[in-house]
Amino acid sequence: MKLLEDRIRKDGIVKEGNVLKVDSFINHQMDVNLFDEMGKEWKRLFADRPINKILTIEASGIGIACVAARSFNVPVVFAKKAQSINIDGDVYACKIESFTKKRIYDVIVSKKFLSKDDHVLIIDDFLANGCAVLGLLDIIKEAGATVEGVGIAVEKGFQRGGKLIRDMGIRVESLAIVESMDATTGEIVFRK
Amino acid sequence: MKLLEDRIRKDGIVKEGNVLKVDSFINHQMDVNLFDEMGKEWKRLFADRPINKILTIEASGIGIACVAARSFNVPVVFAKKAQSINIDGDVYACKIESFTKKRIYDVIVSKKFLSKDDHVLIIDDFLANGCAVLGLLDIIKEAGATVEGVGIAVEKGFQRGGKLIRDMGIRVESLAIVESMDATTGEIVFRK
Repeated sequence: MKLLEDRIRKDGIVKEGNVLKVDSFINHQMDVNLFDEMGKEWKRLFADRPINKILTIEASGIGIACVAARSFNVPVVFAKKAQSINIDGDVYACKIESFTKKRIYDVIVSKKFLSKDDHVLIIDDFLANGCAVLGLLDIIKEAGATVEGVGIAVEKGFQRGGKLIRDMGIRVESLAIVESMDATTGEIVFRK
Repeated sequence: MKLLEDRIRKDGIVKEGNVLKVDSFINHQMDVNLFDEMGKEWKRLFADRPINKILTIEASGIGIACVAARSFNVPVVFAKKAQSINIDGDVYACKIESFTKKRIYDVIVSKKFLSKDDHVLIIDDFLANGCAVLGLLDIIKEAGATVEGVGIAVEKGFQRGGKLIRDMGIRVESLAIVESMDATTGEIVFRK
């Protein structure tokens, strides 16, 4: 998606350690007009799929998923990190390792909000090693629901997550795939 | 806001310990069409204010803030819990106690995304003892920005947060104010 690639080139910052900072428009300050265009693009790409629910994970997936959900006219469920007294015991659970925070989270979704009748689109801001998406796929499988696809804003094409999930036969639509990036020059090359 | 009050009566669940569960449409599964109507209502209520940014806090404020932001046509910034290697050291910080999770968080906002030129609307899902909003007010003050108001989905009118913040001269617009609730009967009384 040219709009997103152009924005990443303009406002993204490449840092050592394969870190791409997009915190001025995606995951700290959020450009909701951009999110709206991303939602329309996913709707176009997944037009043939009978999606009735969007699943994401806190925190930075939530804003994109909620704005995108308006194009699909479906509710969003977000997987929660750790246990809260406001969540019933009756939950699907998995463990997810965070690339940026270098720790492992317990992630839960209430059984009330995901069932075998659901056709789910996963949406998240980043796809790198794929841990978050693999965890959400486990939860969807546990619920007996159908995964219709995965919508990602920025995929790091040089990490294994994208290939891993596509090799499972799951459709992944990343709106920008970074093929390589250089922290010294700041150059970012996108996959064609 | 009648639409929200009706929905809380229909789908909200009152539990012991002053807990009101709205996780089927607000803070776990999210009804984005409802969020859109809430955004339009806040836009109507704050029409006279020169708001150029919405500030919220992860996780459950993000969805509401992002959908509401489309009515204001402004970016959203969400305050982050704890430190991530993806956040620069150059941050505003405060401590916030979570009512539901019974713990204290460090909450940060990058200095890049809040400045003295900003006119900020705070948006969050719940207002109870006011800890989250007071923390965000501290951050806005530290940034030298102007607080234009606070938009809350559900205020627990029998807890002190709302009075505390209104007594500071800050305009608080809660779309539903729960005056009392009864875990035995499930009855919820809203402030007129």
